[in-house]
Amino acid sequence: MTSFLTRLTIELPIFQAPMAGVATPALAAAVSNAGALGALGLGATNADGARDMIALVRASTTRPFHVNVFVHAPAQADGEREAAWLAALAPTFRAYGAEPPAALRTIYRSFAEDDAMLAALVEAAPPVISFHFGLPASERLAALRATGAILLASVTNIEEGRAAEAAGVDAVIAQGWEAGGHRGVFDPAAPDERLGTFALTRLLVRRLGVPVIAAGGIMDGAGIAAVLRLGAVAAQLGTAFVACPESAASPAYRAALLAGDAAHTVMTTAISGRPARSLVNRFTALAAELAARTPSVAPPDYPIAYDAGKALHAAAAARGEHGYGAQWAGQGAPLARALPASELVWTLADELRAAEHEHANRD
Amino acid sequence: MTSFLTRLTIELPIFQAPMAGVATPALAAAVSNAGALGALGLGATNADGARDMIALVRASTTRPFHVNVFVHAPAQADGEREAAWLAALAPTFRAYGAEPPAALRTIYRSFAEDDAMLAALVEAAPPVISFHFGLPASERLAALRATGAILLASVTNIEEGRAAEAAGVDAVIAQGWEAGGHRGVFDPAAPDERLGTFALTRLLVRRLGVPVIAAGGIMDGAGIAAVLRLGAVAAQLGTAFVACPESAASPAYRAALLAGDAAHTVMTTAISGRPARSLVNRFTALAAELAARTPSVAPPDYPIAYDAGKALHAAAAARGEHGYGAQWAGQGAPLARALPASELVWTLADELRAAEHEHANRD
Repeated sequence: MTSFLTRLTIELPIFQAPMAGVATPALAAAVSNAGALGALGLGATNADGARDMIALVRASTTRPFHVNVFVHAPAQADGEREAAWLAALAPTFRAYGAEPPAALRTIYRSFAEDDAMLAALVEAAPPVISFHFGLPASERLAALRATGAILLASVTNIEEGRAAEAAGVDAVIAQGWEAGGHRGVFDPAAPDERLGTFALTRLLVRRLGVPVIAAGGIMDGAGIAAVLRLGAVAAQLGTAFVACPESAASPAYRAALLAGDAAHTVMTTAISGRPARSLVNRFTALAAELAARTPSVAPPDYPIAYDAGKALHAAAAARGEHGYGAQWAGQGAPLARALPASELVWTLADELRAAEHEHANRD
Repeated sequence: MTSFLTRLTIELPIFQAPMAGVATPALAAAVSNAGALGALGLGATNADGARDMIALVRASTTRPFHVNVFVHAPAQADGEREAAWLAALAPTFRAYGAEPPAALRTIYRSFAEDDAMLAALVEAAPPVISFHFGLPASERLAALRATGAILLASVTNIEEGRAAEAAGVDAVIAQGWEAGGHRGVFDPAAPDERLGTFALTRLLVRRLGVPVIAAGGIMDGAGIAAVLRLGAVAAQLGTAFVACPESAASPAYRAALLAGDAAHTVMTTAISGRPARSLVNRFTALAAELAARTPSVAPPDYPIAYDAGKALHAAAAARGEHGYGAQWAGQGAPLARALPASELVWTLADELRAAEHEHANRD
């Protein structure tokens, strides 16, 4: 066991990804109780919701767990751009007997400016806190550090990795191009080199002085064994946990994920306003169609676009069409399994041991 | 050692990528003599050139080696599209005191229709032959198989992998999104899921019955150890060998590759007409500029566009600007080393042993 895992007091080099909206307190607790690091995404809730979720995890486990906050640049409202986007979506709303919303709201606050969330975290003092989409200001980092929390940041390239290290995080999560859900790029307007998990993990291990947790496309124990060989201290798996009964994934999302080799994924900005990897579904098909037909109409800023996306999903779902949901998944989706979380963790641990044993005996 | 390596009669699970235009007979022979599998790309030469190159390898090694041919759908000439592309490039030609060519040629024949190349390979009988961009017709495959050659195909997704297995190849090369040079997609007009090396390798190992060689972003022994944990039988490295003194890479290409963390890469179709991963350079910047300014003007079919690309490179190079060369590289570029090929192979083998040893002692 590495010194970082010892510091975390977890037995297995396995992190469950926080997955805002999908990970539940029950999932996080089950994963942590099984010897891995369970996690909650707080990006889609407010301070009160965060307090409640953390209390629910604590009611079910005494083991460490991890909470994640979104640290995006606060959304820039732009009435013209939002109206154009709603107009582009209007025919699809109408196809399901609905009208688009008259206006869009900024449905989530960024941790960059959410003092109530900072106070909630300082008070609740979760053992591990991670940042997605960027880094908080130094005084916020210092306040969290003072709670004794281990601090992590998602990064997608060497430059973001160096910035995270300079800010003083304890480790980075190397989020490769394969990863499902929101891509953690700090600046979505900057060119994205789209580094794959393999290249990114090795580059960060070679370039940074802090431990690296690898994420993206890891679905089984062989994958975990592989990232350990790349020098990562642990693997973070999201898609592998989506179909656990403890997750909040809808039946339609589970079914789409468990479609085997038909579970293809694509990076899209149309659902939320930021690049995110989704199962190919009605929404990503619509996004491709809109991009071809009206390339000048771009989704509003994150999370304003997400307000429209959620409304479209609700309208279609009311008519029985569930293909407009945010069905985030990584490129390893065809390898997803529907197992209870504890059983999945034990299976991953067995597979990891087998992969290491097979390896030791290979020559 | 796996049975596949035994069949290949190589000691190390390391393939040098064929890299048409960069790999030389001297590079291939040096790699093979060091215990890995050296390779030559024949995609940029004709039957006579192939015969000569294979003879040169054989003059320098008695060990097995690998030759690769391009099996793309033959180019569709389109005078209007080609004229529009040349018009778009014309200001850049003129900036270097040159005029664009009056017309473009199909500078390479596809192995799909090159009977002379088939005859040359049947006669020369190289021990390992691989296919890039697609699969030859069954009678061509049968003719190559009858020489005793081990046959490989580059694939980028499960569907291509299944097609290669059904065609009867002995193993597949899983070419991940990270990989430098031409992306081996069978149909460049089809949507590309852009599977990363990590996800692709594991998906193919889990889905196919033939051995998988992993390629893309692998630069050192830790990377080789990692793909072995994913279940690959070997790793194929291209970018790692570009800066070897035995390669045909130009001084400018070497210097750009060895720029450390400044060596960024991007996938572009502008240089050759097919998606290929290049170092970010003058040509990829021009491509981005043209795509933004005149999105309706697309490069001609591969390899017709490459005729224009090579002419532009020659024009700029004549004025001392080398940034329009085809400087292919994978996402691991910042980890490139300039070592003689044999020394690089020995270093990779040492690193691989160290990674396996470290691993065995981890717990």
